[in-house]
Amino acid sequence: MSSLSAIAFARQNHPRFLEELKALLRIPSVSTLPEHAGDCHFAAEVLAAELSRIGMENVRLIETAGHPLVYADWLHAEGKPTVLTYGHYDVQPPDPVDEWHTPPFEPVERDGNLYARGAVDDKGQVYMHVKALESLLMTRGSLPLNVRVLLEGEEEIGGEGIAGFVASKPPELKADFALISDTEMFAPGLPTLCVGLRGMIYTEIEVRGAHTDLHSGMYGGAAPNPFFALAQILARLKDEHGHILIPGFYEDIIPPSPEELQAWHSLPFDEEHYRISEVGARQLVGEAGFSVLERTWARPTLDVHGIPGGFTGAGAKTVIPAKAQAKVSMRLVPGMTPAKAFAQYKSYVEKIVPPGVDVEVRLIHSGDPCLIPVNNPYIQAATRALHEVWKKDTVFIRSGGSIPIVGDFAQHLGIPSVMMGFGLPDDNLHAPNEKFHLKNFELGIESLILFLEEAAR
Amino acid sequence: MSSLSAIAFARQNHPRFLEELKALLRIPSVSTLPEHAGDCHFAAEVLAAELSRIGMENVRLIETAGHPLVYADWLHAEGKPTVLTYGHYDVQPPDPVDEWHTPPFEPVERDGNLYARGAVDDKGQVYMHVKALESLLMTRGSLPLNVRVLLEGEEEIGGEGIAGFVASKPPELKADFALISDTEMFAPGLPTLCVGLRGMIYTEIEVRGAHTDLHSGMYGGAAPNPFFALAQILARLKDEHGHILIPGFYEDIIPPSPEELQAWHSLPFDEEHYRISEVGARQLVGEAGFSVLERTWARPTLDVHGIPGGFTGAGAKTVIPAKAQAKVSMRLVPGMTPAKAFAQYKSYVEKIVPPGVDVEVRLIHSGDPCLIPVNNPYIQAATRALHEVWKKDTVFIRSGGSIPIVGDFAQHLGIPSVMMGFGLPDDNLHAPNEKFHLKNFELGIESLILFLEEAAR
Repeated sequence: MSSLSAIAFARQNHPRFLEELKALLRIPSVSTLPEHAGDCHFAAEVLAAELSRIGMENVRLIETAGHPLVYADWLHAEGKPTVLTYGHYDVQPPDPVDEWHTPPFEPVERDGNLYARGAVDDKGQVYMHVKALESLLMTRGSLPLNVRVLLEGEEEIGGEGIAGFVASKPPELKADFALISDTEMFAPGLPTLCVGLRGMIYTEIEVRGAHTDLHSGMYGGAAPNPFFALAQILARLKDEHGHILIPGFYEDIIPPSPEELQAWHSLPFDEEHYRISEVGARQLVGEAGFSVLERTWARPTLDVHGIPGGFTGAGAKTVIPAKAQAKVSMRLVPGMTPAKAFAQYKSYVEKIVPPGVDVEVRLIHSGDPCLIPVNNPYIQAATRALHEVWKKDTVFIRSGGSIPIVGDFAQHLGIPSVMMGFGLPDDNLHAPNEKFHLKNFELGIESLILFLEEAAR
Repeated sequence: MSSLSAIAFARQNHPRFLEELKALLRIPSVSTLPEHAGDCHFAAEVLAAELSRIGMENVRLIETAGHPLVYADWLHAEGKPTVLTYGHYDVQPPDPVDEWHTPPFEPVERDGNLYARGAVDDKGQVYMHVKALESLLMTRGSLPLNVRVLLEGEEEIGGEGIAGFVASKPPELKADFALISDTEMFAPGLPTLCVGLRGMIYTEIEVRGAHTDLHSGMYGGAAPNPFFALAQILARLKDEHGHILIPGFYEDIIPPSPEELQAWHSLPFDEEHYRISEVGARQLVGEAGFSVLERTWARPTLDVHGIPGGFTGAGAKTVIPAKAQAKVSMRLVPGMTPAKAFAQYKSYVEKIVPPGVDVEVRLIHSGDPCLIPVNNPYIQAATRALHEVWKKDTVFIRSGGSIPIVGDFAQHLGIPSVMMGFGLPDDNLHAPNEKFHLKNFELGIESLILFLEEAAR
């Protein structure tokens, strides 16, 4: 059978696909809340059962220390490449619940969107994969290439289980490329592939002064103040123009190509609209001479997330705390490595410690930046499929965030990831009233069907 | 009868005085813990009953929104001055309890000390007042001057109740001077009067960036980071040498006189010993050119107590918080006023706000610095009494902390305070194994008896 019939099948069955997705969205598989552990397991079972039903093989749950992985494969396309499709069935907590217009776990269609926690992140997108596979299997009795499906239930809480599994390089994950639908389109109707992610190092700085908390009246003026020392250190990490002051920090950066910059420049992006509607701050900040897209996609940054310790209650307590801590992370861009960046940072912080205090710099976790060449044949196949469905040229974007599984696939399995997502910028990920645009669910399935066929060529 | 017989009475009754004090110390009158509200009330009742028993008049509890005040008077010394004696019956929580060698509320005599929570701060010192009055009343049938006793049960939690009462200028508090025993001797055996206290302003700086918490991957490099902005602000409040950078901050300071500085220089104080045993830091900090005593007694300081907000849990969360706060206080010295200092500080902070954020500077509370001239007749009377008992000249010290009631007495009642305390520097105030040196309890009562007689001349 031809791809047209798989697409015809998908179109014909769209109402059923949507009802099935709603059933999946009704399962409150909130991975971070222990009371929902049963729901997470149930969501995994539902997906495994559906993968079996559509004809996938070797379907099983792989237990981890946390929520289980779901595995399935179909490996009968001899001589064809193998794709590893990835997604996650766990969702963020729905809080604050009272800001939802309809209950988070009662999916509702409204104004061309499907509202529910997990609608776009990532159950709706996972389900597009399943339904693309079903459409192909039901209409042609086979798949155009070999497929391995791997789903996890801990993406929202760090993905430890899948990371361990991938690092063990199991034969079940041998593939030529990965397909991930957990990103978004740059604008409605604009087919988008994400080809770059920033890496990161997440650190803690601990500063210790006196051997115990002291009274600021008695000792103020003689005892070192770790919070003040920390402020002095932090203020010397980045200048007022957003330039990171760690020596050598920028030296290995591979800047975007002139063509990539030109392409970003052509994207429909308005900095003032972004400032007002997305950030809501008096003014955007960052390095002069770089656009917002460059600053968030292709430049390293340094952020402080919190400064625990000391007195944080209401009112006043006159203490000079014995120690202070800061949570500091840096985003890294292609060319940089977490190990070198951390060593540069640690050595610099240790050099600028103010008198009277001791400092310890700790690495909490890290991830490599990644960049997928746009001339990769699977990226090229994806653009052809997307053009067929959306009638537009694909835009290649990057993301300022990190998707650790992409780095894990690259490092342990040696495969690139095609990040083909169908979310929209206003889908309210991790926020109340999360939604998925129904047209994107429909056209996403068609895009995926065509992509699997194109990738098999 | 002569003062000798009052002192003889005190010496003879010392064992009983000590047993009575132990009974008072067994009451866990921890003012900050709601479950001990009944104990606080009971401690007030016990003291009121004892004041009645020894012959004080008009004894009563004055209820407040919190724990009650205890009032008593004896006003039959016509033509003589009136002293207002102050103390507090509440104590700090005993935590960490497992660091006590004996239980905090089971007083134990060991090595010439009495160990218990409240032994020196302030039940033991309050009880010296009561026993000095008893010794005088029991031996001469009268007091050498008019006495009003005012005790509170909220000193450790801010003293709101007494502050309101004093501010109302009630006729019960009309007096010529106050007597407070809630300070310490500079060294064992060295009679000490505290004649200066630093004032303070306690403030919060709130910095707001984006309208909501943002993902640091997506927005890092474009969205303002309130914690980083706060670090930049804090780092500009004080230079690396401890000099406060607020314009005009030092302009009204009245420095200690050359005689006072000379006297401080003669005190038995070793900076290296202080660094190691009291502070326990790698190095002391503060303004160059000033000794530790000058820096902690006679120079303004600025301390950061905590930086609430943001992510403070274990591990990593990649958030750019929408806002950050800092608790910042400044100690003020004679010549400075809280109102002017706060205005200078607020205006400076508002000038140095980094781009992209909004700032709000709030005053939480404040207190005036105070300095009592050593030629005050009651101070002079105190030195004569102390010399008689301790056979040494009194040293005049200041305290870097604030005792708000001293400012309240000065402001609302127009009276100076004689701060004659008998604690020792190693008495572990607010810490495990609080103690009171038994010899100081004994000689303190004798000093107070003689002081009341000297003050009546």
